[in-house]
Amino acid sequence: MKIIIVGGTGTIGKAVVKELSHRHQVIIAAHQHGDIRVDITDTQSIEKMYQTAGKVDAVISTTGKIHFGKFTEMKPKDYEIGLQSKLMGQVNLVLIGLPHINDAGSFTVTSGILSHDPIRFGVSGSMVNAAIDGFVKGAAIEMPRGIRINSVSPTVLTESMPQYGDYFHGFKSVSAADVALAYSKSVEGLQSGQIYNVN
Amino acid sequence: MKIIIVGGTGTIGKAVVKELSHRHQVIIAAHQHGDIRVDITDTQSIEKMYQTAGKVDAVISTTGKIHFGKFTEMKPKDYEIGLQSKLMGQVNLVLIGLPHINDAGSFTVTSGILSHDPIRFGVSGSMVNAAIDGFVKGAAIEMPRGIRINSVSPTVLTESMPQYGDYFHGFKSVSAADVALAYSKSVEGLQSGQIYNVN
Repeated sequence: MKIIIVGGTGTIGKAVVKELSHRHQVIIAAHQHGDIRVDITDTQSIEKMYQTAGKVDAVISTTGKIHFGKFTEMKPKDYEIGLQSKLMGQVNLVLIGLPHINDAGSFTVTSGILSHDPIRFGVSGSMVNAAIDGFVKGAAIEMPRGIRINSVSPTVLTESMPQYGDYFHGFKSVSAADVALAYSKSVEGLQSGQIYNVN
Repeated sequence: MKIIIVGGTGTIGKAVVKELSHRHQVIIAAHQHGDIRVDITDTQSIEKMYQTAGKVDAVISTTGKIHFGKFTEMKPKDYEIGLQSKLMGQVNLVLIGLPHINDAGSFTVTSGILSHDPIRFGVSGSMVNAAIDGFVKGAAIEMPRGIRINSVSPTVLTESMPQYGDYFHGFKSVSAADVALAYSKSVEGLQSGQIYNVN
C-alpha cells in the first residue's frame, strides 16, 4: 500500500512509520520536516500535499495542537486552537483527501483518552478528542467507494512522561510502539467507524 | 431557585419551562422571543443577557444550530455552523456565565444521540454532540465554588417526527416532556459531569 502519514515526524508518527514502512510505501508529511511539508490548519496546504503525493491507499494523521490551561481562565480563543488544529485540521485531511484516496482506502485520525477520562487543565482536549471520535462514527457510515475511517485514542505516551507526567499522575502510560499497532490494525484490517482505545 | 433557560421557546425549552416553573423562578432567554433576547454566537450578547438577568442559581441551554448534509458534499464552513453555534455557543454560555452563577449552581447543556448513534446527513451532529459531552466531562472536574455541569443527550423528539422523521427511521422517539425530566434531574439533583441519555 501507499500510505501518507501526516505528523510522521512526531513521537507517535515515528513509531507508526517504523511499524508500517517494512511492508508499505510510506510518505511522511509534517509541518517542518518529512517528505512533504504541510500545515493542517491551511486547506490549500493540505490540497497541495495531496497533489504532490498522488493517489494513496491510506491516510494516517498523528498530529494536531490543543491548548492546555486552567478551565476558569480559558477564553473562547483558547478553545479555537484545538478546534482549528487537532479537530478541523484532521477533519479537513479527510474531506480534502477524499478525491485523492483509492477505492477501499482508509483514513486513520488521532484522538485521545481525555475524551472520557479528563484531567486538570485538559478541558479542550476532552472536547476535541470526543469531537474527533464523534466525527469518525458519523463519517464512517457515509463514506463512499468502500473507504473506511477509524480513530486511535491513546493514553499518555511513556516517551512523553518526562514532559507531561505531572498532568497524568495515576495514568498507566503506553509506548509509542504499542500505540502504533492500532494504526496498523486500522490500515491493514477491515473495520470502520471504530475508536481504538490504547491504554 | 432562579433559573435561566436559554432556548426556552423551543420544543425542548418549552417543556423544561413547564416542568420547572411550578417550583422555581424561570427566566426565558431566546433569539426572538422570551424575557431576554440573546444570540449565543455573540459573546457580547451573552454577557448582556447575564447582566440583565442578575445572579442565577442554574443555567439551562436547550439551543444551538447544526448543519445537516451529505458527508461527501459538506465543506469546512458547513461544520463551522455547528462548532460556532451548538458547541461554542453553549460553551460560551458556561464560560461567560461563571461570574454570574451562585455557589453550588449548575449548568445544563444539550447534546444529542448522534454522538454515538449516527445517521445519514448527521456527521456534524455526531461531531458537535460528542464535543459537548466531552466538554462537560472535562469542565465538571475543574468547576469552582461547587458549581456543577451536566448535559442532556436526547434522541429524536416525538414532536419533531413530522419534520425530521425521515432521517430517524428505526429510532424510538421520546416526548419533550420526558426529555425535560433530565434537566430537572440535572438542576435539582447533585450529580456533575454526567451525560443524561434520554432515549
